[in-house]
Amino acid sequence: MTTNGSHIDHLWAVIPAGGSGTRLWPLSRAARPKFMLPLLGDRTLIQQTFDRVTRLTPSDRVLVVCGPAHAAAIARQLPDLPEGNIIIEPTPNGTAPALALANALIQRQDPLAIMASFAADHDVTDLDAFDRAVRTAIRAAKLGDLVTIGLTPTRPETGYGYIERTAEVRVTGDEGTAYKSSRFVEKPDLETATEYLESGRFLWNASMFIWRVDSLTNELARLQPEIQAGVTEIARAWNSRNRERVHAQVWSTMPSATIDTGVMENAERVAVVPADMGWSDVGDWHGLGELIEQDSAGNTIRGELVQIDTTNSVVWSESRRMVATIGINNVVIVDTEDALLVVDRGRCQDVRKVVDELKARAKQRLI
Amino acid sequence: MTTNGSHIDHLWAVIPAGGSGTRLWPLSRAARPKFMLPLLGDRTLIQQTFDRVTRLTPSDRVLVVCGPAHAAAIARQLPDLPEGNIIIEPTPNGTAPALALANALIQRQDPLAIMASFAADHDVTDLDAFDRAVRTAIRAAKLGDLVTIGLTPTRPETGYGYIERTAEVRVTGDEGTAYKSSRFVEKPDLETATEYLESGRFLWNASMFIWRVDSLTNELARLQPEIQAGVTEIARAWNSRNRERVHAQVWSTMPSATIDTGVMENAERVAVVPADMGWSDVGDWHGLGELIEQDSAGNTIRGELVQIDTTNSVVWSESRRMVATIGINNVVIVDTEDALLVVDRGRCQDVRKVVDELKARAKQRLI
Repeated sequence: MTTNGSHIDHLWAVIPAGGSGTRLWPLSRAARPKFMLPLLGDRTLIQQTFDRVTRLTPSDRVLVVCGPAHAAAIARQLPDLPEGNIIIEPTPNGTAPALALANALIQRQDPLAIMASFAADHDVTDLDAFDRAVRTAIRAAKLGDLVTIGLTPTRPETGYGYIERTAEVRVTGDEGTAYKSSRFVEKPDLETATEYLESGRFLWNASMFIWRVDSLTNELARLQPEIQAGVTEIARAWNSRNRERVHAQVWSTMPSATIDTGVMENAERVAVVPADMGWSDVGDWHGLGELIEQDSAGNTIRGELVQIDTTNSVVWSESRRMVATIGINNVVIVDTEDALLVVDRGRCQDVRKVVDELKARAKQRLI
Repeated sequence: MTTNGSHIDHLWAVIPAGGSGTRLWPLSRAARPKFMLPLLGDRTLIQQTFDRVTRLTPSDRVLVVCGPAHAAAIARQLPDLPEGNIIIEPTPNGTAPALALANALIQRQDPLAIMASFAADHDVTDLDAFDRAVRTAIRAAKLGDLVTIGLTPTRPETGYGYIERTAEVRVTGDEGTAYKSSRFVEKPDLETATEYLESGRFLWNASMFIWRVDSLTNELARLQPEIQAGVTEIARAWNSRNRERVHAQVWSTMPSATIDTGVMENAERVAVVPADMGWSDVGDWHGLGELIEQDSAGNTIRGELVQIDTTNSVVWSESRRMVATIGINNVVIVDTEDALLVVDRGRCQDVRKVVDELKARAKQRLI
């Protein structure tokens, strides 16, 4: 996948690999999170993410941030990633400490670095559009802005946060435009989301961030001084024999915060690059079904199926079981070795409630 | 279950155990037919049938007629049944040869016998009503009639054959009445079935037959002379060393016929005893769901289920898999180790089409 000719000087990619993807239960589990699954093709979502970023930067300038439970699997899924580039969070602490530590570790090695962060479990189908958006974002980041790539909304989605842009252009060119951003907003209600869609000024926040490492360091020092002090201390000990002790001790005393509310919402100069790159967060079974080729009756099928009068449904079998459906419309059926889900396609958001119920029943094996 | 005090002199019970119960796939299979399954309680349908008939006659006067593939399992499921009372049909040949052979074998042992035949895979909930109907039928059989017990229809069912009765009483008493029957009719269309229901003269044919062995022998000799000659030859060799050879040879040359069209429809004196005994043929998943206790939302559940907004559905898990349903109404979900069925509750008759498709795909293991 790597095309060295187009690698970008000083670009470092960070891939936060957190979250299990509860709404894709029973396929996704705590021990087998969404980013580790080959949902779209033969490669897993984190492998596809790694492939995307190594078009732009060599694999030794890619860092993955993950929990202790997933480090080994990630090491195996990404054989080209140097072992030392897997950064383990001792405990989940929100995205701000995770990205701040990556930023500090990169800055120690390359003070001129540009850091670009992309979630491990999203899908992008238009790679050229992705590249163009990143290159535009890098140009804006070089001005000192904290930059996001915002996806042009295609529906009044209430499940995502939004970024409002101004008309003020920070950089522009053949590859795209970065605008000054005016605010980050949390998930809206449907009425508000509809207004956002119609306004043309709001973009989906897909947690794609690009900044100069010194820009983030400066904003962290201003907005999250405890986090910045903590990650500086950890980064200083990183190549010493004290690394694990310092990391664990400092991490546990650091405040929890997300990069969105903890930094971006109050940062001085934030820019956003609108982009349309065939992006999806692969969030639930309905959405996943839409990303995969459908048969003439609108069905998305994995596994062996005998179907009679079945339409607009998703049948996903990971077991070797034969599946048969008759007279079924708009239903998702997910069959795994130890659990079976049958859900109305309009209720896929509620799959997380099943996981909650399994927690309440202490079915640790299944969640 | 056996209450010797109420056993009826010269009564012999025959249980034809054929048919796999295709519409209960994937639970029922060729190798594990419906009658071998504990669908209603802890005992299998054939065990419950055996329990019903041994209220009326001792177990050494019960014969089971089955195919070679099921003899061993039946021997284990019915430990009180003498081994010699399992009659194996070399090949399926319709019900007329099967019942004719049982009749001939009984007649050799007990020329005064009354034979009563009941399918192995039906359900009866009112045992006292069953007993009364059989006793009334026996009184009519003693007059020389071929007698059926006909179930009072409760809906315009198009899946069953019907028996029309006349107003002519053959026998009557506290326990019931046997009427002269005018005809047997095949499965009607809905309009005809509705007329039948309204007429009050039509009864469901549930293949419950009672006759004196000499009465059937006489009618067979008149209507199916080849079958009668064949079973006489087989019965004569039954206790000799030639039994298997004669049975196989004669059986393969005997015409195939059902007792309904081959004998009953043209018999000279046929009587029918109307009865209402909580009968069901346990024919499909919708019907099976109705026979089992439902929760307050109308769901019939076997196995472990997490359900959210699920109504009027059947969830039957034979695997140890956890099943979760969300927003599902009027659906049947059947989960077994190697196959999964999801069917709209109104389409349960079409489950047989799935089995046809599996045959076409040469999935012998699954059918």
